[in-house]
Formats: sequence, C-alpha cells, structure tokens
Amino acid sequence: MSLPDAAAMLETFENPAPERDYEIQHTAHEFTSLCPKTGHPDFAKLVFRYVPDEICVELKSMKLWLQAFRNEGIFYEAVTNKLLDDLVAVLKPRRMEIVGEFSVRGGMSSVVTARYERDAS
Amino acid sequence: MSLPDAAAMLETFENPAPERDYEIQHTAHEFTSLCPKTGHPDFAKLVFRYVPDEICVELKSMKLWLQAFRNEGIFYEAVTNKLLDDLVAVLKPRRMEIVGEFSVRGGMSSVVTARYERDAS
Amino acid sequence: MSLPDAAAMLETFENPAPERDYEIQHTAHEFTSLCPKTGHPDFAKLVFRYVPDEICVELKSMKLWLQAFRNEGIFYEAVTNKLLDDLVAVLKPRRMEIVGEFSVRGGMSSVVTARYERDAS
Amino acid sequence: MSLPDAAAMLETFENPAPERDYEIQHTAHEFTSLCPKTGHPDFAKLVFRYVPDEICVELKSMKLWLQAFRNEGIFYEAVTNKLLDDLVAVLKPRRMEIVGEFSVRGGMSSVVTARYERDAS
Amino acid sequence: MSLPDAAAMLETFENPAPERDYEIQHTAHEFTSLCPKTGHPDFAKLVFRYVPDEICVELKSMKLWLQAFRNEGIFYEAVTNKLLDDLVAVLKPRRMEIVGEFSVRGGMSSVVTARYERDAS
Amino acid sequence: MSLPDAAAMLETFENPAPERDYEIQHTAHEFTSLCPKTGHPDFAKLVFRYVPDEICVELKSMKLWLQAFRNEGIFYEAVTNKLLDDLVAVLKPRRMEIVGEFSVRGGMSSVVTARYERDAS
Amino acid sequence: MSLPDAAAMLETFENPAPERDYEIQHTAHEFTSLCPKTGHPDFAKLVFRYVPDEICVELKSMKLWLQAFRNEGIFYEAVTNKLLDDLVAVLKPRRMEIVGEFSVRGGMSSVVTARYERDAS
Amino acid sequence: MSLPDAAAMLETFENPAPERDYEIQHTAHEFTSLCPKTGHPDFAKLVFRYVPDEICVELKSMKLWLQAFRNEGIFYEAVTNKLLDDLVAVLKPRRMEIVGEFSVRGGMSSVVTARYERDAS
Amino acid sequence: MSLPDAAAMLETFENPAPERDYEIQHTAHEFTSLCPKTGHPDFAKLVFRYVPDEICVELKSMKLWLQAFRNEGIFYEAVTNKLLDDLVAVLKPRRMEIVGEFSVRGGMSSVVTARYERDAS
Amino acid sequence: MSLPDAAAMLETFENPAPERDYEIQHTAHEFTSLCPKTGHPDFAKLVFRYVPDEICVELKSMKLWLQAFRNEGIFYEAVTNKLLDDLVAVLKPRRMEIVGEFSVRGGMSSVVTARYERDAS
Repeated sequence: MSLPDAAAMLETFENPAPERDYEIQHTAHEFTSLCPKTGHPDFAKLVFRYVPDEICVELKSMKLWLQAFRNEGIFYEAVTNKLLDDLVAVLKPRRMEIVGEFSVRGGMSSVVTARYERDAS
Repeated sequence: MSLPDAAAMLETFENPAPERDYEIQHTAHEFTSLCPKTGHPDFAKLVFRYVPDEICVELKSMKLWLQAFRNEGIFYEAVTNKLLDDLVAVLKPRRMEIVGEFSVRGGMSSVVTARYERDAS
Repeated sequence: MSLPDAAAMLETFENPAPERDYEIQHTAHEFTSLCPKTGHPDFAKLVFRYVPDEICVELKSMKLWLQAFRNEGIFYEAVTNKLLDDLVAVLKPRRMEIVGEFSVRGGMSSVVTARYERDAS
Repeated sequence: MSLPDAAAMLETFENPAPERDYEIQHTAHEFTSLCPKTGHPDFAKLVFRYVPDEICVELKSMKLWLQAFRNEGIFYEAVTNKLLDDLVAVLKPRRMEIVGEFSVRGGMSSVVTARYERDAS
Repeated sequence: MSLPDAAAMLETFENPAPERDYEIQHTAHEFTSLCPKTGHPDFAKLVFRYVPDEICVELKSMKLWLQAFRNEGIFYEAVTNKLLDDLVAVLKPRRMEIVGEFSVRGGMSSVVTARYERDAS
Repeated sequence: MSLPDAAAMLETFENPAPERDYEIQHTAHEFTSLCPKTGHPDFAKLVFRYVPDEICVELKSMKLWLQAFRNEGIFYEAVTNKLLDDLVAVLKPRRMEIVGEFSVRGGMSSVVTARYERDAS
Repeated sequence: MSLPDAAAMLETFENPAPERDYEIQHTAHEFTSLCPKTGHPDFAKLVFRYVPDEICVELKSMKLWLQAFRNEGIFYEAVTNKLLDDLVAVLKPRRMEIVGEFSVRGGMSSVVTARYERDAS
Repeated sequence: MSLPDAAAMLETFENPAPERDYEIQHTAHEFTSLCPKTGHPDFAKLVFRYVPDEICVELKSMKLWLQAFRNEGIFYEAVTNKLLDDLVAVLKPRRMEIVGEFSVRGGMSSVVTARYERDAS
Repeated sequence: MSLPDAAAMLETFENPAPERDYEIQHTAHEFTSLCPKTGHPDFAKLVFRYVPDEICVELKSMKLWLQAFRNEGIFYEAVTNKLLDDLVAVLKPRRMEIVGEFSVRGGMSSVVTARYERDAS
Repeated sequence: MSLPDAAAMLETFENPAPERDYEIQHTAHEFTSLCPKTGHPDFAKLVFRYVPDEICVELKSMKLWLQAFRNEGIFYEAVTNKLLDDLVAVLKPRRMEIVGEFSVRGGMSSVVTARYERDAS
C-alpha cells in the first residue's frame, strides 16, 4: 500500500497571527476511499481542527491530497490516524483533531476521532 | 435465557494506532429484541463508543452479533449492561460507553447509558 | 412460504360514517422482515391509506398481523403487493394505497408504492 | 355517550368578507380524548379548514368545545367525522375539511381526513 | 376604527416586465396588531403573492404601512381581507393572494388565505 | 388536593447491574394536568433521568401513575417537585433529575428542572 | 423614559420547594419594543432562567409586564439589563439569567446575555 | 447601467439528449448585487430550471456571469426578468423558469418567479 | 469512453405483481464519477422511479453497476440521460424517471431530471 | 492592501451596565470578500461575541464597516484575525471571540475561531 504522500502534496503558507492560539477547522464533505476487504467504496465527512504554529495548510492542495485516497484500500480506524500523523508531520501544529464520520454499512455507521497535542508528554 | 455468545461471534483486528488514545464510535440503527414480559418486539438505536487498547472490533461480526438478539426476550436496562459487559470482556478497551435509545411505548421513550473505565478503581 | 393469514388475524369494526368518502391512514414505523436471499433483517416504515366502505381495520390486530412477518423471508416488491392484496380482500375498501419505505442497504434505499381502486376497470 | 353539544357551546360571528371564497384554518395542537376500549388517553393534532358562508366560528369557544372531549371515550374515525358533522351543522360553511393526526400507539400512528362540500350532490 | 390608509402610504414603481405574467412574493415576518376583544397583541407572518400589471409595490413603504397596524384592534379574518382589498385597490394586479399565519393562542394557531383574480367574473 | 399515590401505583424490579453507576432516562411525551387557577388543561413533555440503586421503576406502572394526574389541578413548579419527591421516596436512587417542558400559554413556554443527589449533604 | 413598573405589575407566589435549588425557565416568544433611534419596532425571543428563593413569578402578570414595553423605545443592551435588574429586585432569586435573541436588522442578528448570582461577591 | 453581457460571457455545449424533453436545474446559492436606491448589498439564492433544445449552458461560465452582477445596482423584480431574458436569448430553450429568493430586509423577504415557454403564444 | 455495460452487469427478477401498475423507487445516496473537463470527482444522489412491466432490477447488481462509474469522466446532463437509456433498454418498464442531484461546485448545485414513458408517442 | 479603517468607521455608545460582566453577540449573516489568489468572491457568516467594558459598538456602523470588505482580497485566516484585532483596538472589551464560518469551496468548508482575553497574560 503506497498511500498519497502528504509531504509532497500539501502546500502551506505562513500563519498570519502566530502570536495567538486560534483554531482553524476544515471540513471535507466528500471523502471517499475503498474498503480493503471488499473493494467497495467507503464515504466519509472528515473534520480537521487545528491550532497553527508557524504555518497553515493551503486549502486547495489539501483537497487534492484527500482526493488521492479515492482508489486506495484502507480501514476507517487506519485512515483517520494516518491523516492525523501526516498532517502533524507537515504542519507541526500546536494541537490537531480529526473526526471521520463514515456512512452507513449494514445498518451501522461509524465515527473515529483522534487528537494530537504538541505539549502533551 | 441463552443470549448470543459474544466471545464466539465477535471478530477483532489489531489496533492500528495503539500508542494513541483515540475514540471509535459505531451506531447500530436497527437493533431489535423482544420484551420478555409481553413478547412484543422492541426497537432501539445503539451507540457504542470506545478507546481501543490492543484490538478493535470488526464491524460485520458486530452486526451479526447484534442481529442474534432478534428473537431474545430481554429488558432495556439488562440488554444495555449485558452488551457492555460482553464487549469489555472481548475487547479489553481502555474505556467504553453504550447508549441505548429505545423507541416509544405507551407514549414513553427510554434511553439507557452505561460506561466502563479500565483504570477506574 | 406460509405468510401470516390476514383473514384470520385482522379484526374489523363497522365504519362509523359510510355515507362519506373519507381517508384513514395508519403508519407502521417498525416493520421488519427477512431478506429471502441473505437471511439478513430488513426494516421499513409502512404507510397505509384507505377509504373504508362498510368496515374499518382494528389497529391492534393490524399491528399483530404486521409483527407476524418478523421472521418471514420476502422481497420489498413482493411484501408491499402482498399486504395490499390481503388488506383489500379483508376490508373491501373503496380505495387503498400502501407505501413501503425500506431502509438503506449498500448505500441505497427503496420505496415501493402500490394502489387499489375498487371502481377502476 | 353524551358528547359535547356543539350547538350550545360554539359561538360565531358574522363573516367580514362573505362576497369572497376564502379559507380559514384553525389547528388545535393539544386535543385529547379517551380510547373507548382501554380507557387510556389519546392525543391528536386537529386541523380544521373551511370556507365560511355567513358566519365564522369564534376561536375561544371552539377551544372550550374541543376541551370538553377530554374525558369522553371515542374512536379516531368516529371523533373526526363527529367534529365535521357538528361544525357543518353550526357554521353551514361552503366547504370544510378536518385532518386528525393521532399520536403513536404500539409503534403505529394514524391520520383521519374527512371533507364536506356544500354544493356536492 | 380608522385603519392605516394604504392609498396614502404605499409607494409604487413601474413594472419592469409588464409583457410577462410573473409572480412577486413578499413575506412580512413580524406583523403585529391587537385583538379587538381582549386588547392583547396578536402576531403573524404574512405572505403576499401577486402578478403585477402596470405597477409594483415599493418594499419599504409596504413595511411602514404594515407597521401602522401595530396598535389597531382587528380580527384575523378581517385584517387578511382588508389587506387584500387595499393592496388590490392600489396596485390593480392581475392576481393576488394573501396568507396570514397567526401565532398560537390557547393551544390553537390559525391561517387565513384570501385570493383575488382580476379576470374572474 | 389528593394527588396520585406513587407508593401504591408504582411497580419496581431489581436493578440488573447494581455494581455500576449507569443512567436510565424515561421521557413521557404526553403528560397533561389542569391549571389550578383556570381549570384549563396544561400539557408537558417530562424527562426523568436517574441512576438506580437497588431497584428500577417498571415502565407501564409509571405511565399509569402519570396518567392519574389528568384531572388534577397543580402548578408547573409544584408538579415537577412533587414528581421528584415521590419517585425518590419509592426508588431511593443514587441520583435523579426531572425536566418538565410545558407548552405555550399566552406566547410563553416554561421549563422546570429539579435534581436530587443522595450523597449531597 | 418611564418604563413599565415591575414592582407594581408583577405578581408572585410562594415557592413550593424552597428547600431545593431548582431552575425555572420562562420563554417569551413574542417580545416587541421600539428602537429609540429610528422608532421602528424591534422583535425578540426572551429566555428567563432563575433559581427561586422564597417566591416565584406568576406567569400571566409576567406576560402583561413584558407587553407593556410594546411602545417603549429602548436599546437591546439596555432592555436586557433592565429586565434583569427589575426581576431581581422583585423576586430576590438565588440566581437569574436573561437571554435576549433579537431578530435580523440589516443582515445582522443580536443576542444579549446577562446573569445575576446572589452570593457572588 | 451596463449590465454583464450574457452573449459574450456564457459558454454552451451541445445538448447530449435533444430527442427528449428533460429538465436541468442550476441553483446559485451566493448571488449578490447592489440596491440601486441605497447602494447597500442584496443577497439571493437563484434557481434556474430549463428544458434545453440544442444547447446547454456551461456551469463555470454561468457562475462568472452571475458574479459580474456583484457591483451592479438593480432591483429584485428587474434582475430576475433580466436574467431570464438574457438566458433565453442565448440558450433558446424549450422552457425556462427563474426563482430569485432575496434575503430579509427590514423584516421582509422576497421571492420573484418568472417563466418562459417557447411555444406559448 | 467505454462506460459500464448495463446489459452485462444488471440482474433482474420476475415482477411479482405484473397485473398492477405500481412504482418502485431506488435511491443511490453515494454516486460518484469524474468531471471530464477537470478530472475532479463529482458526487450525486440519484433517484430512480419506475413502473415495472415483466421484470424488476435486482438491487445489489444495480449498486455494482453504479459503482462502475467511479473513475469514468462524464457530464451531469450526459450521465443522467445515459443511465435512463440503459435501464430502459434492460428493464423495458412502463414508465421510468431519474433525478440526479449533484453537489455544490463553485457555489452552484445542479439537478437533472429525465423521464421515459413507454406509451408516449 | 488598504483594508477598511475600523477606528474611523465604527461608532460606539456608552455601556448601559458597566458594573456587570454580560455578553453581546452580533451575527453578520452576509459577509463577503474576495479570494486574494483567484479574485473569486468568498462568503461567510461571522459571529462576534464580547463582554463590553466602557463602550459598545453601534450596530449600523458595524454593518457598514463589514460591507467595506466587499471588494477586498483577504484569506480566511487573515480576515478573522484582522477583524478581532481592529475591534479590540476600538472597543477595549473585557473579552471577545470571533467565529468565521466560510462557505463550501471544492467540497470543503472552513471555520476560523479567534479569541481575545484582556486579563490573560
């Protein structure tokens, strides 16, 4: 499995207010990937919330990075944690949270929520 | 009363991010069992939230386990606690919560909420 | 397949206003049967609308009749037409319509609508 | 069964625009009566729509008339037709329609709709 | 009772597309007047729909005209018909409809709907 | 005023999971009583939440107890506190909360919220 | 500006459960006053929450007091604080909060929230 | 007033199914122009429905054409009819309808609906 | 462009009630294809309504057929008409309608509606 | 980039209740500016919450100040922080929070939240 390369795909820009802790939230309403077990498509709404440090993620490059998962097979729990790890590596934010809301399969829907806190130790 | 055997029915997979406390929520929109007193069907939406430790529950096996309650007679309060006990025994999660939202009977609806915390003592 | 016997199970009462064409609608929010192909449960909201002639259907007997489909295997299209045929045979209404709204399976939901008109010929 | 006496209880006032066919709709959000079979309370939202001829019904007297059904035992189909008959007798409207939306009992809800047209013959 | 003078208060402008039958709808979300019986305030949402002929009503003057009912005592049925009569007299529209949705009083809400059609005869 | 006797009317059953603090919520969507001042009916949605200790309340007996207030005159503030006192006396719960949401009267709606905590002192 | 006199207009009754801290919330859905700058009407939904001490406010007198602001000119910020001050002076509650939700003006809506705590010092 | 030039700005493509009468609806959720009287911005949701004949409008060019009204002063009634006239001139559709839903001003919102039918004569 | 082959992919079953005109509606909530111009993904909810003649479409095969458009480039107007043509060729229904609701692009959303009537000529 | 001058445009008035910490919230439903990269319009709902100290912002001047961003190019993150900085400089509030909810672009929507606390140090 060679998933989309966040470091290569994501563009960033300088945080316009680094002196302040403030929150940016981007919601991707149309995320889709494949179930690695059945090959069937999965659909999700992904919510990203972060407190930027020195840089912010540029929205269009983020959209293209997420679209690159379209034909990749990856489980709900894995993709949510992978997205968090990759964004943290690129943005080095003060805090970040990702919520993945996956659509109904067999009468059941799922939500996976993962958080990163830089100064948690 | 011989209720569905969680240990035998539930499949699990390795937690892809055990180094992190993160939350998985599965919502079963179509749970149904029988009222042990009247024999009439009961209907519920069940929400399961947990922080996995070493393993996660596989979604399809969880659906089949819940479907196996279809013709069992069991009260609201009992089934919610039973589902929690059985899942905790199989998954050994760091935390788990179950919310059962039972549909209207005689102009009254019910919600039962039970929680497990591994390190609470 | 020996489906529930409507003639034996449904109770009726005398129409209190037979001189007038008026409409009665009963909605069963919790219908469930089995998929004859997979054995998995199906769920539906069923709406019944009719203009009674000499008799009306008694609500509690109707609920018990619908509950009797709980462990029967029958397709969406078949069950909607079967319910219409059986109710028409028992009630001999002036008009009747049944709308079955079946829940999501594989990202797809279904609605089946069938109508009977006594004087249509 | 001696139901509330519409002729005695309802007050009316002169239609301020008898030269025009226009529609008045009153919705009673809190109607309650008793089930004649079980004695348990029934609840409904009742919608009255009419085209007045010479007189209109006064709203407060209408509320008191509807409240007088509080402890009467009467079926859904019967009460809807009875309300229509009584209002037509008092108001002699050009047209009238009553929609009774009765709350869930045993997982089933009901709507009864009856219409009167003066010049239908 | 000297109600607001529509002819004096309403401003109009030339219909920009008189060659076409098209519909203009203005909704006044905050109409209030007084109950002539109790003196208590009544509240309504008023919807005006019309097909203009030679002139259209200017929106701000319409707002001021409706505000002028604030301390007038007038019944639901009367005010709806009065507003229709006055607007028709000023605008001479091809068609006009007014829907007054009056808020809950004693558990009952009311809607009054009146229509004018120029060529109906 | 001789209000319904909770001790005589309410049935209970043994808590199936007394070793755990968990919450049971019952919502009565169709509560009605009378205004002691005007005699007019009041309507409310009542939400009961409690953490059971040794016993739980049986749902059908609870419904009958609440129905017994149908023709009693009692104020919003008084009935909410009375229901809490009576349920606490019968169930001896670890915690209990009652929220009464009363419908609109004269353009105003009301909510009364009362809580009991056994170990608060 | 001589605003309505709360002390003269508000009626109270004895708190039926003074031994307990519980919350009463009254929502006035139809508050209206005038803008002191333009003279145009303002509309608001006002939510009052309080923990009574020895007395509670009687609902009908509260409605009449609020109606008395109908033709008074007063700003959003001022009226919310004035209502809080006057109610606190009359009821001497343990706690009180008022939330005024004012309707859209020029594409902007406003909410003003003020709180009183007796034992804050 | 030199409004945006539809003929120059709109791109079209060949109708892929000219043998069939079918409907295309485009909704512009973010239309804004200026009030010619006050200079203040107006906002609207515009719904376009048409049955294409030989050509369809390309969506991106339509967006740019609508954005070009951003700093133009034009009344609700005029802009709706102007948009219809211009699109009809470019697309020569079999039928077309435009619904402009304009946001609240002074407590009043407006909807303007205009239709074109090629074979109406 | 070699689009998915409906004749090869769709399975059918015998209509259980061919003597009656009744309607079947299937809604695909998760349709996705590519924009042929930009290569970016498009998303839609597709609603299919038909009156079957001799055969009905099997739901799972329909889901797989729709999933096969995932990586095809095709415009909104073309895909809606193509789906209708292909389904009509396979099912030979008495009537069929397809509604494609496409998600927001550049502040604009689109709906395409196409109908087939066998006996229209 | 010479953005609107808050100090020159914003009018203020004396806080009517400076002795109390209370919250004022203004929501601008119709904010629009330009994307500095593409020149395309951006749309947002902006929520301002603050605890005033000696002065409050006058609502109409605030609307005009926000309208002055109509043709300015500025990023989501920058405009939210700029609005906060400028309002804090003018009002010197005890606390202030701004939430900018920006509409969908390329299937993604954004929310930026920034806070100021006077006594945070």
